[in-house]
Amino acid sequence: MRLPAAVVASVPAERWQQDLTPFLSEWRGLFFAQADGAVCPQSTGEVASLLRACSAERVAVVPQGGNTGLVGGSVPFTAEVSAALERPVFDMSAYAAVIVLSLTAMNRVRSVDPENFSMALDAGCVLADAQAAAEGVNRYFPLSVASERQCQIGGNLASNCGGINVLRYGNTRDLVLGIEAVTAQGEVINQMTSLRKNNMGYSLKDLLVGSEGSLAIITAAVLKLFPRPTEQVTALLALQQPDDAVTVLAQAREQLGDLVSGCELMSAQAFEFAMQYGSDCRSPFSQSSAWYLLLEFSGFESTLPQRVSALMDDLVTKLALQFSLAVEAAEREALWHIRKSIPGAQKHAGASVKHDVSVPVASIPIFLERAMAAVTDLMPEVRPCPFGHLGDGNLHFNLSQPESMSAEAFLAQWQDFNRVVHDLVIELGGSIAAEHGVGQMKTGELQHYLDEGSYAMMTAIKQALDPHNILNPGKVLSSGATH
Amino acid sequence: MRLPAAVVASVPAERWQQDLTPFLSEWRGLFFAQADGAVCPQSTGEVASLLRACSAERVAVVPQGGNTGLVGGSVPFTAEVSAALERPVFDMSAYAAVIVLSLTAMNRVRSVDPENFSMALDAGCVLADAQAAAEGVNRYFPLSVASERQCQIGGNLASNCGGINVLRYGNTRDLVLGIEAVTAQGEVINQMTSLRKNNMGYSLKDLLVGSEGSLAIITAAVLKLFPRPTEQVTALLALQQPDDAVTVLAQAREQLGDLVSGCELMSAQAFEFAMQYGSDCRSPFSQSSAWYLLLEFSGFESTLPQRVSALMDDLVTKLALQFSLAVEAAEREALWHIRKSIPGAQKHAGASVKHDVSVPVASIPIFLERAMAAVTDLMPEVRPCPFGHLGDGNLHFNLSQPESMSAEAFLAQWQDFNRVVHDLVIELGGSIAAEHGVGQMKTGELQHYLDEGSYAMMTAIKQALDPHNILNPGKVLSSGATH
Repeated sequence: MRLPAAVVASVPAERWQQDLTPFLSEWRGLFFAQADGAVCPQSTGEVASLLRACSAERVAVVPQGGNTGLVGGSVPFTAEVSAALERPVFDMSAYAAVIVLSLTAMNRVRSVDPENFSMALDAGCVLADAQAAAEGVNRYFPLSVASERQCQIGGNLASNCGGINVLRYGNTRDLVLGIEAVTAQGEVINQMTSLRKNNMGYSLKDLLVGSEGSLAIITAAVLKLFPRPTEQVTALLALQQPDDAVTVLAQAREQLGDLVSGCELMSAQAFEFAMQYGSDCRSPFSQSSAWYLLLEFSGFESTLPQRVSALMDDLVTKLALQFSLAVEAAEREALWHIRKSIPGAQKHAGASVKHDVSVPVASIPIFLERAMAAVTDLMPEVRPCPFGHLGDGNLHFNLSQPESMSAEAFLAQWQDFNRVVHDLVIELGGSIAAEHGVGQMKTGELQHYLDEGSYAMMTAIKQALDPHNILNPGKVLSSGATH
Repeated sequence: MRLPAAVVASVPAERWQQDLTPFLSEWRGLFFAQADGAVCPQSTGEVASLLRACSAERVAVVPQGGNTGLVGGSVPFTAEVSAALERPVFDMSAYAAVIVLSLTAMNRVRSVDPENFSMALDAGCVLADAQAAAEGVNRYFPLSVASERQCQIGGNLASNCGGINVLRYGNTRDLVLGIEAVTAQGEVINQMTSLRKNNMGYSLKDLLVGSEGSLAIITAAVLKLFPRPTEQVTALLALQQPDDAVTVLAQAREQLGDLVSGCELMSAQAFEFAMQYGSDCRSPFSQSSAWYLLLEFSGFESTLPQRVSALMDDLVTKLALQFSLAVEAAEREALWHIRKSIPGAQKHAGASVKHDVSVPVASIPIFLERAMAAVTDLMPEVRPCPFGHLGDGNLHFNLSQPESMSAEAFLAQWQDFNRVVHDLVIELGGSIAAEHGVGQMKTGELQHYLDEGSYAMMTAIKQALDPHNILNPGKVLSSGATH
């Protein structure tokens, strides 16, 4: 057993897990990860003790929350990948050992302060539980993603999670008021304030959010709560082309301002996967359409349904579209269920190459047109099923394998698909890691596309905070890569 | 002349200013700054050229925008202060020379994209011009401070400026989508995207915002625009105690949600200074009151005035208060004019010791009670005139000198006032640098109150990005202080 005795002894014996399998299986099934141990500390002090020992013994530490990440960020780096994915390779055998440090056991809601519109949670708190804690005091915590029943707050922060409410409420970073973290050296950063205004030095909170466990391990956070909207209306539109979706969104924002709280685009293919493989997904339309748009409106005035209705009536006179409105909770959830079923449904359709990209909203139609052409040029039978957060310009330009092709043959084209799609995204002024993060999947892409000045600054920060590269090596940056 | 020839030659000769006086005078009149030169580059390339030369020659560089800062951050560090202000001292003579690098000449609005709700500006663009550029395309840029006709975007970003709209729209950091900056080594960081979702590595944008010119020099930014509210109502309330202000705000948020966009508290003393020294300030009330609360409501529905009226009618049945509502633009501006006149008005009242603090909103009444007692204990004749952004918990707990005392005698108590007020703020879980930043004024306070882990991380980042401490030395952190 490779684990140094000092590391093992740094926490009570029962923190070390017998079965490593759940900690090493990641959602995409792409990375065949290995580790010498998995540990579930029960306090910030235990995390600090572990890191002091790992730092001294040169043991690599992979922080993990709900293990729902989509870019291999939450499992140890592995050279062995079940896809033709090219990226810098790290020699993990250079470390004395590699452990997964799971925050799962640190799952308490520490405190809820409805008057102050804030709540303090341990990093292992499940997102759905955080949402419920807010609802329990008639407040709203707007972070919402498909994996919310499994993912944890620490992981949400580490990946600067996006989700379906970014249009109105922002990304995770916009929802964080305070943070507690442990450094590579085992020191505790204590910034657990709930203040809206605090300029006491550099914003470590904003640097650590989105750093994917490679600069420090987040152990707790203070999150922002919002008034709970009293009125909600969901609209599903059937459209003929993405341009119409952009027009609809612009008019919705023009007429209803920030009463528009969500906007999701779904291609016919994505919609059909949900119908076919999702559980109990039903379309309100009798015929299928080329594109679908899910719009969420929320506010505090009882006139909201009428106003959305008026908007729809107006849109129908200008564009060829159909719509279905839902006001009752059950009907609204049924519409959202379609959208939330897509990621899981796509799995049933076989192997996939996913592109988590963003472009300026107005560029979405041209991006879709050119990207579709580019990927079908490479592989005529590929099944693109784009869907995503139109309101923030973030699309999951996902490709499902041709039904007649083997998964292996399909995934052999991974790098080629990436190159044409990512080149296009960058040409349009976009991002090649819009919300899922970089993980171990996109380290090569990040270095390829970021400007030199930015990459140098990120590398300098990493080297300053983690000189021995023990925090999640092989993730985000390429520094330390052996080839 | 101390300026190394290589530094002088790094930009066209006419960039160097003949008269240094305006660059060395700061608003508080506290710091008697000196410099060997002041330069106004006209492009990012020129900024880079300057920094490469300054880096090689060990010339200290003080970035400057509108020079409206209140903590001495925008002028060179000086040991000589016209107040008994204790803080770490830096030996500026250790540098080959010291220059002020003003962004003033780089003041273009680069582009405005109303469809994308964003605009790109050079760092020297004056804030009021940025607001006008947004208004010109029927959009809203919500950053608003008393100094907006003089301060510049670069300084707003460097200080993570707050202002009067934070309650609804957040701080400056929440309004920044992209950034361009030049490092201490003269490399350009190019992150001028307008995307809402972008997780390509660490958030350098969020680290540089609020770094007060000590990690890099911001040369341009992409800022977020918002739909322009169509309905606005301003209410001025006359109250008897701060508890009532907190109650009013809570009820306003409960009934009207995020239609509440601003909330400013004014003590009787602050209100009277505005009446006495402001230009054309008029109270809508016939009698004076102990406290005043300015509430701003904005939204997109024509029922807003009625809803605010209903809220006021309800509040009057519960609390002893008077109110005045304004819907017409001129009347609303007249009410806001009172609030905006306070900082300038307080200057007329003599020397002042200011505390830019924040505490959780619910703690504001207890903070005011205890802080008033603490400062009058120290000096019975002191004239506290607190005012500020109640909605975010940020108060300017400012003290004006007793009328009968000399400015010098008053300012000799600076450190004593700081100690009792800041100790109280920290005890209540607050911040001692809520929106103005740390500058050179609060470097000692920052090190005194921040936890060790946070301070060590900030120091490590500074040393990594600016190993020779040429960017705004003596500001924010104490590293490099000679005593």
